[in-house]
Amino acid sequence: MGFERPLLGEPYLLTPGPLTTSLATKQAMLRDWGSWDADFRALTAELRRRLLAMIGDVDGAFECVPMQGSGTFCVEAMLGTLVPRQGKVLVLANGAYGLRAAQTLRALGRAHTVIDKGDYLPPRGEEVGAALDADPAITHVLAIHCETSSGILNPVEEIAQATYARGRKLLIDSMSAFGAVPTDLRTLRYEAIVSSANKCIEGVPGFGFVLVRRSELEAAKGNSHSLSLDLHDQWTVMEKTGQWRFTPPTHVVAAFIEALHQHAAEGGVAGRGARYANNRDVLVAGMRAAGFETLLDERWLSPIIVTFFCPADPNFSFPAFYELMKEKGFLIYPGKLTAVESFRVGCIGHLDADVMRAVVAAATRSLAEMKVASAAPAPHVLGERAKLVA
Amino acid sequence: MGFERPLLGEPYLLTPGPLTTSLATKQAMLRDWGSWDADFRALTAELRRRLLAMIGDVDGAFECVPMQGSGTFCVEAMLGTLVPRQGKVLVLANGAYGLRAAQTLRALGRAHTVIDKGDYLPPRGEEVGAALDADPAITHVLAIHCETSSGILNPVEEIAQATYARGRKLLIDSMSAFGAVPTDLRTLRYEAIVSSANKCIEGVPGFGFVLVRRSELEAAKGNSHSLSLDLHDQWTVMEKTGQWRFTPPTHVVAAFIEALHQHAAEGGVAGRGARYANNRDVLVAGMRAAGFETLLDERWLSPIIVTFFCPADPNFSFPAFYELMKEKGFLIYPGKLTAVESFRVGCIGHLDADVMRAVVAAATRSLAEMKVASAAPAPHVLGERAKLVA
Ligand SMILES: Cc1ncc(COP(=O)(O)O)c(C=O)c1O
Ligand SMILES: Cc1ncc(COP(=O)(O)O)c(C=O)c1O
Repeated sequence: MGFERPLLGEPYLLTPGPLTTSLATKQAMLRDWGSWDADFRALTAELRRRLLAMIGDVDGAFECVPMQGSGTFCVEAMLGTLVPRQGKVLVLANGAYGLRAAQTLRALGRAHTVIDKGDYLPPRGEEVGAALDADPAITHVLAIHCETSSGILNPVEEIAQATYARGRKLLIDSMSAFGAVPTDLRTLRYEAIVSSANKCIEGVPGFGFVLVRRSELEAAKGNSHSLSLDLHDQWTVMEKTGQWRFTPPTHVVAAFIEALHQHAAEGGVAGRGARYANNRDVLVAGMRAAGFETLLDERWLSPIIVTFFCPADPNFSFPAFYELMKEKGFLIYPGKLTAVESFRVGCIGHLDADVMRAVVAAATRSLAEMKVASAAPAPHVLGERAKLVA
Repeated sequence: MGFERPLLGEPYLLTPGPLTTSLATKQAMLRDWGSWDADFRALTAELRRRLLAMIGDVDGAFECVPMQGSGTFCVEAMLGTLVPRQGKVLVLANGAYGLRAAQTLRALGRAHTVIDKGDYLPPRGEEVGAALDADPAITHVLAIHCETSSGILNPVEEIAQATYARGRKLLIDSMSAFGAVPTDLRTLRYEAIVSSANKCIEGVPGFGFVLVRRSELEAAKGNSHSLSLDLHDQWTVMEKTGQWRFTPPTHVVAAFIEALHQHAAEGGVAGRGARYANNRDVLVAGMRAAGFETLLDERWLSPIIVTFFCPADPNFSFPAFYELMKEKGFLIYPGKLTAVESFRVGCIGHLDADVMRAVVAAATRSLAEMKVASAAPAPHVLGERAKLVA
C-alpha cells in the first residue's frame, strides 16, 4: 500500500472521518468531470456495483442509492423514504448518533420510541424483542452499528434476529463501520444500511449511500418529506438516466472510486478490518501501558475509534493536550460522552501500526510537557463504569 | 490569471457547473482537514466573510449559512426554513429551475402558486404586482435569477420593487448568476439569496450557501421540515462553535477558498462578470456567423449560458454532435426546453475568449463532419419564438 506521510505536512487525522486519505485518492480530484457525460456516468455505475458487491448481494435483491450531503443527510433520507408516514420506529440509542436519529424522526414528525442505553452499554437482542412485543405499532428498528461517540460496536446480529423473529424491519446506520466490519447479507439481515464516503472506504466527504432492498424502495414512492432527500426519486432517476438527480460532488465521487480500488486491493472488508483491528490493538496496548484507561470493556471495543478517559491529574486539560498532540502531527478527537471527561482516537484512515505507535509516544510526551504525573482517570469514573457494565 | 489547459487532458466543460476549474483550485484538495480543528474553522469563517462582502452587506444585517449537498438542497433549505408553515409562496417560473422550486414546495406541503412563463419569457414586475394584489395570502416571492435551463437573465430588480411595494418578501435562486451578476444589497432588495460552490465562483461541487437577513433567520426557528436542511439550526451551531453541524465536504471547502481568492484577484463580481460577458459575446457572434440561432432576444441573453436551436438539417443529431464536440475537447450541454430541440453552451468557468473561439471552430467542423449544410433551425421554430416574444 505504501503509507506515505501526508503530502503537505498536515497532521494525521485520528478522527472518525474526515480522515487521512491516501495521496492517490486526493490526486483523483485533479480533474473536472461533466456530470452529464458518459465518463462520469460510468463512475457512478462502478460505485454502485462495487458497494453492492461489498454486502454480498448475490441474488441482486438490493439497490445502491448514493445521496449528496453528509452522513446525517443519508440517515434522514433513509428514514424519511423507507418508513411510511404511518410507520413507527424503535430507535436503539447508546450515544449521540442514536439520539440524532431520534431527533431526525422528531423533525419529520414520524412516530418513534427510543431505548436509550446511555454512553456505555449496547442494546441487546432480548430488550429489543421485549420492546417489540410490547408495542405492535412498531414497524421498523433503527440500529447504530458502531456508535462512534463512544466507539462501541453494537451487536447488530442479535438485534436483527430479534427484529425479524417478530416480523419487523431493520435499518442500520453503519456510517463508521461499513467497509471494515462485516455487513454481508448472508450473515446479517436488514432492509437498508447507510454509510458515507469518508469513513472506512477512506474517501473524502461530500456524499453517502444507502444500500436498500429493492422491494422496500419500490414501496416507498411518495413517502418522503423532502424533494432533495427522496431516496425513491433519486433511485428512479438514476436507473433511468445513469445520472444523479441533482449535481453530484464529481471530484468527491472520483476520489471515492480510487478509494474503492484501494479497498479491494487491500482485501476488501476483511483486509481493511484486519488493519484497523491491528491499529486499535497497538493503540490500546500502548495507551494502557502509558496509564490511560478505555471507556469500554474489551468485548465492545470497535476497530473504528477508541474512547479514553481524561486523566484525573489537575494539570491535565483537553484543549492543551489537543494542541500538544497537534504540534506533534496528530489531530485527536474530543469526547462525546454526556457524563464524564474523555477523548477519542480513531483507528481508521490511511494509517498503520507505525502511526499508532507514534500517537502513543506523542501522548506520553504531551503528558510530560503538561506535567501530568499519571494518566489514570478519577477512581469514581471507573467505579461508575464497573457498576453500569455489571 | 493564466488559463492553463486542463491538467489531465480532459475536455473543457462548457456546462453551467460543474465547470472547468483552475488547477490551483483543484490542488487545494490535496490535503486532508480535520473538520473540528481550528485550521478548518478558519476556512469556514473566511468563506462566510467573503461571501457576505460580495453582496455589500455594509450594515451587517445578513448572515451566510453554508449547507452540504447540491444547489437544490440549498433551495429546499431556504424555502423550508424561511417560509413559515402558514406562509404562501409565489413562484416565478420560466424554465426547469422555477418548476423545481414549485415541486420542492409541493413535497414540503407548503402553500404556493406559480406564474409559469414557459421557456422564452421573463416574469415582469407588473404581473408579479398583479398576482400579489390578487392574493393577499402570499407572503413570499421566489425568483430565479438566471434561469439556467434557457440562459435567460430575469429582471430581479423590477421583481423586487413589485414585491416590496406590496410588503411581501423576496427569495432569490441565484445559483448560476451569483458571483458574476450583481446581487448587491445597495441596489437589490431581498431576504435571502442562494447559490452553490460550483458556479460563478468556480469551485467544485459539494455544498451551497444561503445569504439571509439575520432577522429572518432568527424568526425561523422550528419552521424546517427536516433536520439536515434546517438553516436556522445550521446557523445557530455555526455561530456557537465555528463548525458545520454535520461533516462538511472539507476538500470542497478548501477548493472554494482558493476559488474565492481567484475571484477577488480577478476584480470580484465586476471582473468575473466582464470575462463571462466577453465569453458570451465571442461565442454568440461566432455561432451566429456559423449560422446558428439563439433562443433568446439580445436583451435577455445572460453571460452564464446560451441556448442555441438545433439545426433543422436532417443530418443533424444532438448525440452525434455531442460526441464530435467531445472528441475535439469540449463538453457541451443538452437543451432543457420543453417544446423545441436545442443545446446549450456555458460561458462560465476557468475559460477565456480563446476557448470560446475554439468552441465555435469545433462546432463548425463538427457540422461539416455530420454533413450538415446549414446550421439554421426550422423556420416554424423562429416563427413561434417571434410570436411569443412580441
Ligand atoms: C454512526 C454515525 N452516524 C451518523 C453520523 C453522521 O455523519 P455526518 O457527520 O457525515 O453527518 C456519523 C458521523 O460520524 C456516525 O459516526
Ligand atoms: C438556477 C438554478 N437553480 C437550481 C439549480 C440546482 O442546483 P444543483 O444541480 O446543484 O442541485 C441549478 C443548477 O444548475 C440552477 O442553475
